[in-house]
Amino acid sequence: LNPATTHKRTPGRRPGDSGTKDAILVAARRSFAEKGRDGATVRGVAAEAGVDPALVLHYFGSKEKLFAAATELPIDTARLLEQVLPGDPEGLGDRMLRFTLGAWQQVRFQETLSALIRTALADSAGAEVARERLEERILAPLAGATRQPDGELRAALAFSQGIGMAIARHLIGIKALAELDDERLRALVEPNLRRYLSGDLGSDPG
Amino acid sequence: LNPATTHKRTPGRRPGDSGTKDAILVAARRSFAEKGRDGATVRGVAAEAGVDPALVLHYFGSKEKLFAAATELPIDTARLLEQVLPGDPEGLGDRMLRFTLGAWQQVRFQETLSALIRTALADSAGAEVARERLEERILAPLAGATRQPDGELRAALAFSQGIGMAIARHLIGIKALAELDDERLRALVEPNLRRYLSGDLGSDPG
Repeated sequence: LNPATTHKRTPGRRPGDSGTKDAILVAARRSFAEKGRDGATVRGVAAEAGVDPALVLHYFGSKEKLFAAATELPIDTARLLEQVLPGDPEGLGDRMLRFTLGAWQQVRFQETLSALIRTALADSAGAEVARERLEERILAPLAGATRQPDGELRAALAFSQGIGMAIARHLIGIKALAELDDERLRALVEPNLRRYLSGDLGSDPG
Repeated sequence: LNPATTHKRTPGRRPGDSGTKDAILVAARRSFAEKGRDGATVRGVAAEAGVDPALVLHYFGSKEKLFAAATELPIDTARLLEQVLPGDPEGLGDRMLRFTLGAWQQVRFQETLSALIRTALADSAGAEVARERLEERILAPLAGATRQPDGELRAALAFSQGIGMAIARHLIGIKALAELDDERLRALVEPNLRRYLSGDLGSDPG
């Protein structure tokens, strides 16, 4: 289901263009974000993408499947499982940071994260879908990797820092964060992630 | 280009309704988020709010002023200056958390925060406006209150945690965070904020 990484906006797009599927996904994300899961229509998405509704159904099968593709998680969860989760829980925060900072280099990661947040903000149906996917595919595995009984809470706390940093540094572009190189950022944030993921949450780390 | 003006919320709204101004702001946030600062028009906002364009201009004066009102910051910066910033820098994170958790009780705070994030995500013009306002009206005063030479960086790091928690707990609604009461959340997050705002960032707090 992974579309090409180029996202052209050219109107008059023809079936067969390599970017067509992507254009439909971009239009779908916008429609779902604007109108909600119920309000958006295949016809509306097609109009916004400049294609025939039949082509949308050809690629995605149904509005529900289009919704699933458009709200896909921004990270490769298979690679997350392989590269981040195994190993010492003490180093989990550092591995999470390296993985995320690496992923951020990809335009597709940024776009999908924006889409996910937009979907979550759009309406309660969108938030519900975003939440379920995150909990099932990212937070639950991360919780397990902490090897702690309160792993679910720890994973959620770490996630709150991770997503906040992505938004503040990249999507809003707060200068003091945007100008940091990845190495320095990692040194600044890692101890806070480590407290959340493997520290003593009852005690005071400062 | 964007045929999204078809989803009227409250058709037939009359001038003089107490909610008219609010309806215009809601429509304006949606329009600015969808079409960007340049693409949105007073006419389009008026159509979406179900009012006459003249009424939009009557209330807000111009598209630029409407944009300013629609992207207003979610917190009362005068109260921030009074209640959070003065005092011991060691307690700054705790005061920031109490203030934010209190503000969160107000529907208006949640709506304006969502609008702000949506504006930042919508396009680079939106992100630019959101960034400038945040830096000038929240981050710069917060940086000063840390009384540290690297206060700007510290304020930005604390902001990344704060906005991430608001999004994860409230907008996405991650269960492990949503089910915490404010008191417990404060105990969990405050040490991390304290490290950012007044701790030794070079050293390891874990």
